[in-house]
Amino acid sequence: MSGELRTIWNSADAICFDVDSTVIKEEGIDELAKFCNKGSEVAELTKRAMVGVMTFQEALKLRLDIIQPTLSQLRQFIQTKPPTLSPGIKNLVQHIHNRGIPVYLISGGFRSIIAAIAKSLNIPLENIFANRIKFYFNGDYAGFDENEFTSRSGGKAAAIQKLKDVHGYKHVILIGDGATDLEACPPADIFIGYGGNVIRESVKSKAKWYITDFSELGFS
Amino acid sequence: MSGELRTIWNSADAICFDVDSTVIKEEGIDELAKFCNKGSEVAELTKRAMVGVMTFQEALKLRLDIIQPTLSQLRQFIQTKPPTLSPGIKNLVQHIHNRGIPVYLISGGFRSIIAAIAKSLNIPLENIFANRIKFYFNGDYAGFDENEFTSRSGGKAAAIQKLKDVHGYKHVILIGDGATDLEACPPADIFIGYGGNVIRESVKSKAKWYITDFSELGFS
Ligand SMILES: [Mg+2]
Ligand SMILES: [Mg+2]
Repeated sequence: MSGELRTIWNSADAICFDVDSTVIKEEGIDELAKFCNKGSEVAELTKRAMVGVMTFQEALKLRLDIIQPTLSQLRQFIQTKPPTLSPGIKNLVQHIHNRGIPVYLISGGFRSIIAAIAKSLNIPLENIFANRIKFYFNGDYAGFDENEFTSRSGGKAAAIQKLKDVHGYKHVILIGDGATDLEACPPADIFIGYGGNVIRESVKSKAKWYITDFSELGFS
Repeated sequence: MSGELRTIWNSADAICFDVDSTVIKEEGIDELAKFCNKGSEVAELTKRAMVGVMTFQEALKLRLDIIQPTLSQLRQFIQTKPPTLSPGIKNLVQHIHNRGIPVYLISGGFRSIIAAIAKSLNIPLENIFANRIKFYFNGDYAGFDENEFTSRSGGKAAAIQKLKDVHGYKHVILIGDGATDLEACPPADIFIGYGGNVIRESVKSKAKWYITDFSELGFS
């Protein structure tokens, strides 16, 4: 780690991680779609969403409308297809916790899936910002919480601003692979791009700090 | 049964029943509120809703916001506090079914509670119009389906109109105890007030047909 990044790192009062393709190797919604036999339909839609003028929430709604996950499907998915942690993330989070710095997970994915990841990293459930799927009594899919920050375009920025407002954090670091992560800085004070799973050139080219292995931060 | 009511009864091509205080003796939402230790708060709100200018959906939302039923509470409630069928309803529905006439349950209450009632009366689940509570993955209360006809003022009328549109019914009978039932006629062709559990004077005074025992219809 460079001296400048070391200084920044040491002054952080909160460290936020994106989840999909950052903390874990997979994109949770794509894996869930495959599990529910809707993988290709969702991939098709994701492609269209990326070139179009769809808001994040519209794209999320359309993808969930295709998948229509039931409560039992989601339970089975979580039990049988646990995500793979990216190399070094466990040690890194452990190190941050040892220093007494809180870690947050901020994701456009689903809280029910991320809860197990948080648990394995000793991150408290209340440190998760993510989307919440709804179900009817019989387990049928019933939509998602449309008021959740992370269901909206700019939602990661809103979540980080909320953390700063509530806790008074002055030096928030955000680590992620995607455009929505880069866009959340500011209000995040420092963005560190992560390309260990996928390198997105548009992110890499704009990020002052970019790593492809968490060990580059010096703790693994 | 009078000769005129007999003629009407014999020409019916669908018979719809209200549920709370009609098919069953109780008001489902009040019983659920009591089960969740919110009985008095909900009773208080119901009183306010009756004198005020609240829409049906506003009143429903406020009551559910007080109760905040979790999935496990609702499951326990259904298992341990089954509603009591009103005397004679089982025979009456059996008789209607024997004639090949479909029976519908149209309720401002909750589908998950009414499903068990429908089952005990051999009414297919697709013949239920009622409200659907939503839950998050962890079982927390997550709202209700605000698009359901029965969550809205005038919702019973909309449900009956839909039945007529879809099935082409010409002679729909609706039986119920309350003002929302009376108001659904038209589009219902005949309204029969039922006062076997509660007599609501405003309904009784306006209903051409009024019974206090299902046996008055001659089938029990
Ligand atoms: Mg990501
Ligand atoms: Mg009633």
